[in-house]
Amino acid sequence: MATLISPGTPIGLFDSGLGGLTVLRELTRAFPRRDFVYLGDTARTPYGSKGAATIVRYARECARFLQTYEIGALVVACNTASSVALAGLQAEFPGLVIGTIEPAVEEALRTTRSGVIAVIGTEGTIASGEYERQIRLRAPEAEIISQSCPLFVPLVEHGHLAGEIVEKVVAHYLRPLDFSRIDTLILGCTHYPLLMEAIRAEVGPAVHLVDSARPIAASLRPALADGEAGPGGSRRFFVTDAVSRFNHLARLFLEGEAVTAVQVEDLGDQR
Amino acid sequence: MATLISPGTPIGLFDSGLGGLTVLRELTRAFPRRDFVYLGDTARTPYGSKGAATIVRYARECARFLQTYEIGALVVACNTASSVALAGLQAEFPGLVIGTIEPAVEEALRTTRSGVIAVIGTEGTIASGEYERQIRLRAPEAEIISQSCPLFVPLVEHGHLAGEIVEKVVAHYLRPLDFSRIDTLILGCTHYPLLMEAIRAEVGPAVHLVDSARPIAASLRPALADGEAGPGGSRRFFVTDAVSRFNHLARLFLEGEAVTAVQVEDLGDQR
Repeated sequence: MATLISPGTPIGLFDSGLGGLTVLRELTRAFPRRDFVYLGDTARTPYGSKGAATIVRYARECARFLQTYEIGALVVACNTASSVALAGLQAEFPGLVIGTIEPAVEEALRTTRSGVIAVIGTEGTIASGEYERQIRLRAPEAEIISQSCPLFVPLVEHGHLAGEIVEKVVAHYLRPLDFSRIDTLILGCTHYPLLMEAIRAEVGPAVHLVDSARPIAASLRPALADGEAGPGGSRRFFVTDAVSRFNHLARLFLEGEAVTAVQVEDLGDQR
Repeated sequence: MATLISPGTPIGLFDSGLGGLTVLRELTRAFPRRDFVYLGDTARTPYGSKGAATIVRYARECARFLQTYEIGALVVACNTASSVALAGLQAEFPGLVIGTIEPAVEEALRTTRSGVIAVIGTEGTIASGEYERQIRLRAPEAEIISQSCPLFVPLVEHGHLAGEIVEKVVAHYLRPLDFSRIDTLILGCTHYPLLMEAIRAEVGPAVHLVDSARPIAASLRPALADGEAGPGGSRRFFVTDAVSRFNHLARLFLEGEAVTAVQVEDLGDQR
């Protein structure tokens, strides 16, 4: 049985930038009385095109920053960090540590009928092979098609969520895949749900799109069973750079709610 | 008269990533017997969407790293860093420090006839207003049109130098500008010359495109007057991350020459 996290203890999330807000949005819907602390490492975004050793270091610095807020659970709301740094964070951090990959893989395996699953993500996530490994552990016979989409994160971080450029870039990465056979597409990056409409238009209505946000909320539920009782409901936002752009775009992503992030000077100093 | 830099003393260049190679290419053409040390801060690329304080810190760390190679001149081969950090670097660094902005501005003012000059660059460069300030200092009557193009650097860093996506993104930023009046367009980012063909196709043949690489070489010439005598001609490459991608793309940018960069662990440790 999962250890219960007391109602007054906040949940921490981090991402390289804005993408993790898609997870935060879902968690605040699922647990409206919980307190959340969000960190976007915007000074070093994007993580997805960087090497594994660099990402491990950045992820540790983010986790240590969030620990100073006495969080009861850590959500690694970044697939790139989840794919290369999760085991290390779980070993180091005393509480519950949840990444994006296992929850998404489990949902994909519940929904696929053809057994042909595509995964899209950053270069770092795809190069790690972590989605393939996690799928094969549970379904050795599954057919897995992986595709990195390195321009998706820059599009989202610059506020391009729809329109002709987004459509062309989506087509560039997804049109070569055979969606007559693939029935499940894992959006293996927390930024990608923000491009959902263009992705849906490209792959057609029959493909099941798996966004990790909802399965992450489901994984947290056992530990937060008593979470509805507290007063709570606060959200604190920290970024390592570009606070006004973060506030502006975060407001769009969180459906109009005003966001006032605090800038953290240098995560490297937390080491 | 400029102090001469002895033939055996290398010249240092840095950029957030690959863009500065367009400057290195021009400098090695102009000074083939000189030694060069290049640093690409690929762990923290891109600089252009980050805040000024962050960029100043990163630029200082890059400059200090290059100083350990006893360079005789420092070329800030990044417009974002040049626009916010040049004065600080000139105060701190004992030798010649050249940025990208003044050389490009001087060439633009030599070539414009209409006096209507457009500048494109990263968000950081455009927000700094440094191009406008440098142009107005010399030509108070000039009309200046500034446009940030935040997706250009991600395109180049991911190897998209031509094709439909590049054309759409170039049109997105440049089509709103009135090139019936603008006769000079400053490519205010060292990555942008790699998109030259698409930019040329969009703006038409009559607009003069100013790339800072050649004017930078001209600014260095007085200090390197005796540089042709030495044996030299070496180039050393350092990156803070993603060395194999850098080597691969650098080879394309340097017209087929094989590049073997060395990975530097953590520039933050140089402080």
